[in-house]
Amino acid sequence: MKHKLFYVSMLSILMAGFSASFNTATAQQTQLPAPQKGSIKTSLMNALQNRHSVRSYKSKTISNQTLSNLLWAANGVNRKDGRRTAPSAINAQDIELYIGKSDGTYHYIASENKLEKVNNESFINMVVGKNRFALDAPIVILLVSNGANFHGHNPNFYGAMDAGYVSQNICLYCAADGLGTVPCAPKMDAAAIQKFLGVSTDYIPMIYHPVGYVEE
Amino acid sequence: MKHKLFYVSMLSILMAGFSASFNTATAQQTQLPAPQKGSIKTSLMNALQNRHSVRSYKSKTISNQTLSNLLWAANGVNRKDGRRTAPSAINAQDIELYIGKSDGTYHYIASENKLEKVNNESFINMVVGKNRFALDAPIVILLVSNGANFHGHNPNFYGAMDAGYVSQNICLYCAADGLGTVPCAPKMDAAAIQKFLGVSTDYIPMIYHPVGYVEE
Repeated sequence: MKHKLFYVSMLSILMAGFSASFNTATAQQTQLPAPQKGSIKTSLMNALQNRHSVRSYKSKTISNQTLSNLLWAANGVNRKDGRRTAPSAINAQDIELYIGKSDGTYHYIASENKLEKVNNESFINMVVGKNRFALDAPIVILLVSNGANFHGHNPNFYGAMDAGYVSQNICLYCAADGLGTVPCAPKMDAAAIQKFLGVSTDYIPMIYHPVGYVEE
Repeated sequence: MKHKLFYVSMLSILMAGFSASFNTATAQQTQLPAPQKGSIKTSLMNALQNRHSVRSYKSKTISNQTLSNLLWAANGVNRKDGRRTAPSAINAQDIELYIGKSDGTYHYIASENKLEKVNNESFINMVVGKNRFALDAPIVILLVSNGANFHGHNPNFYGAMDAGYVSQNICLYCAADGLGTVPCAPKMDAAAIQKFLGVSTDYIPMIYHPVGYVEE
């Protein structure tokens, strides 16, 4: 009887282990709603006029709809051939977006308008440095450049430039929709972040954006 | 008699030389009309949707009004404290804009919404490289980072990133107002460009934008 119980327990443990591996293999994905390209009506000029750095955020949650709008604006697909709202050097499309939320870190899959969970924790503590105000933001977006896409063409220089394009799109969307943000580009521990995100050493963290509703 | 003629000629040459130096010292300035922040109504989202690379331009002239709108969008002053539509690392405000037109090269003085002529020729032939289509654009905008503003904080990296912000503003303004552009970032001869613009070796050319009306 003892033996039988032991085998059942072992079986449970093995099953649990198998289940855990299975969950890791098929990362949790969230389909985002389609971006609202028509209903965010703020003009480009007004967004530019309102673009400024915001370092204080309400705790109000950012909905998946707003997140979809924001990520599409940042570096979403705007054409049938898969090209993006942000240009990139030699069309490298090197900038990947990771979203840190209270329940984990998600990778934005632009081609499918999906979020894929890559870690059960947010990366915020790994990047925050002296910018403690960023801890209050409901989401943080990390811009990472996949330098392999440049095939040796000065990846640090072009990666930084490409991050600037995407970062400005984030600034402008926030300015157009009542959100606040500020680009933060401290020195980051690339090796630790690569390990945390499960990516190769080609992926260089460039800049991050805390994002939240603006305090009145 | 011969001697008198010689002295008169010498005097003319000296006067011409003096006049030339005088023109150089008081550079020709053009006050631009105020940017039309209210009357360019294209939404940010529509500008993002329409953002794409354009490499063919009409010869149609770009008015000073449109140029004022474009340069303000790119990196103009949007607040009383002199801050800009584009953020910059450590608020370095390092990106300077030079506009190449058929009659010369102009420096955009954001604080006064003025153009200051710095050369009687356009810089286009110095930067065009393989992008021969850029020769057809009525204007070309060169983004130069003044690395001295970073006080040693990684000027190449942050200069490239800051150029990306301004460059995306140019892309989006063009997409919002019937203009076409494409960011071009070939290797440029920094020393020759610095000499041409009359600036120090701190000024690093980053990227240029041919801009023109889109061919139907």
